[in-house]
Amino acid sequence: MASAGLSFENPVFAAYAAYSSVVLLKMFCVTGYTTITRFRVGVFANPEDVKGNKGAKVRLDNSDVERVRRLHRNDLENIPAFLAVGLLYVLTGPSSGVALWHFRVFAAARCLHTVAYLAGVQPWRFLCFTAGLVSTLSMTVQVLMAGAL
Amino acid sequence: MASAGLSFENPVFAAYAAYSSVVLLKMFCVTGYTTITRFRVGVFANPEDVKGNKGAKVRLDNSDVERVRRLHRNDLENIPAFLAVGLLYVLTGPSSGVALWHFRVFAAARCLHTVAYLAGVQPWRFLCFTAGLVSTLSMTVQVLMAGAL
Amino acid sequence: MASAGLSFENPVFAAYAAYSSVVLLKMFCVTGYTTITRFRVGVFANPEDVKGNKGAKVRLDNSDVERVRRLHRNDLENIPAFLAVGLLYVLTGPSSGVALWHFRVFAAARCLHTVAYLAGVQPWRFLCFTAGLVSTLSMTVQVLMAGAL
Repeated sequence: MASAGLSFENPVFAAYAAYSSVVLLKMFCVTGYTTITRFRVGVFANPEDVKGNKGAKVRLDNSDVERVRRLHRNDLENIPAFLAVGLLYVLTGPSSGVALWHFRVFAAARCLHTVAYLAGVQPWRFLCFTAGLVSTLSMTVQVLMAGAL
Repeated sequence: MASAGLSFENPVFAAYAAYSSVVLLKMFCVTGYTTITRFRVGVFANPEDVKGNKGAKVRLDNSDVERVRRLHRNDLENIPAFLAVGLLYVLTGPSSGVALWHFRVFAAARCLHTVAYLAGVQPWRFLCFTAGLVSTLSMTVQVLMAGAL
Repeated sequence: MASAGLSFENPVFAAYAAYSSVVLLKMFCVTGYTTITRFRVGVFANPEDVKGNKGAKVRLDNSDVERVRRLHRNDLENIPAFLAVGLLYVLTGPSSGVALWHFRVFAAARCLHTVAYLAGVQPWRFLCFTAGLVSTLSMTVQVLMAGAL
């Protein structure tokens, strides 16, 4: 079965690739939003960043910038793990429907997590974070069971 | 040889998948331990996290919480690199015994590194960190030699 | 066509593997440089790191160390994303020449970004960062179009 492998003809892989791209594009938006926020509040992390920029300051404690950076770090703690284990999960040959829901829940949870973090609304941020983690955990356990220590 | 590729019938791949899951599960434990530590000491990073939680404070300098966060960051600096290069290393067709030891050393080193970081014991933390890095470096060099710039 | 898949006989994959190794080795140099910088300025993050090391202090605000750490974090925000999406991009079957330039631009941009960050020279650092991001974004969009949501 060529269709169980890493090929865009395998619908599970094609879905994994698409949802992976979506969460990466979302993460790149956070990268851009950090820069936008730095210019908006006029706060940068390096002395060379404020040269010739009147009114800009070097500070590491602006609450708006640090909020975006905490959100970004939370992405780094979750998204590379999903990307790595998702690929291995595709190779366990899961049923298409179950696999799709793992990817959809993760992608939707991380997008809503971003909104909830920026808006500062709890417990929504926590619930989105948990939904993404549960999806990743479920795939990790299935990969562990298919593998051999 | 289908068995040299990314298939759970290839014992090297099956081992890579299993040890990758183990280090990811370990990393998710750190994620959970951060939350446990925050509740134990009553220190959170965002104002919305302490609402309705009497006695909880927003602080970014609690030594217990920051220790777990430094450990987590060290994971982020090492585990995604292992996951990415390990997969490419499987495709170089290494001997099963040699590959298994690369994966075992990395997984054991990162688990012990976590314990050593939380317990604050040197030089054990440094030695575990180094063992994991040496395993990853060895795989990276072998992938570079198999590849073509 | 076996040559369109994840095999070192596929020149696009062999190039992806080689450039991935290069950026990982670069990132491991940053890891080592952090340690070198800590010993040079005598500033560490944990109490157990300064025991028996006369003159060494626990501080989290040394500008030299924090510059290397910010650079390292920027790597973490960009390199795992490249590693993950680059593999999927290989599987979209891109033309060899176009793919090679994506990998070369990313690898060169991240190496020069490191130099520019350590030297503190703008706008070079920003331009290198942007070049790496554009290469990754281009691959991400192509993977999204090849995939199926």
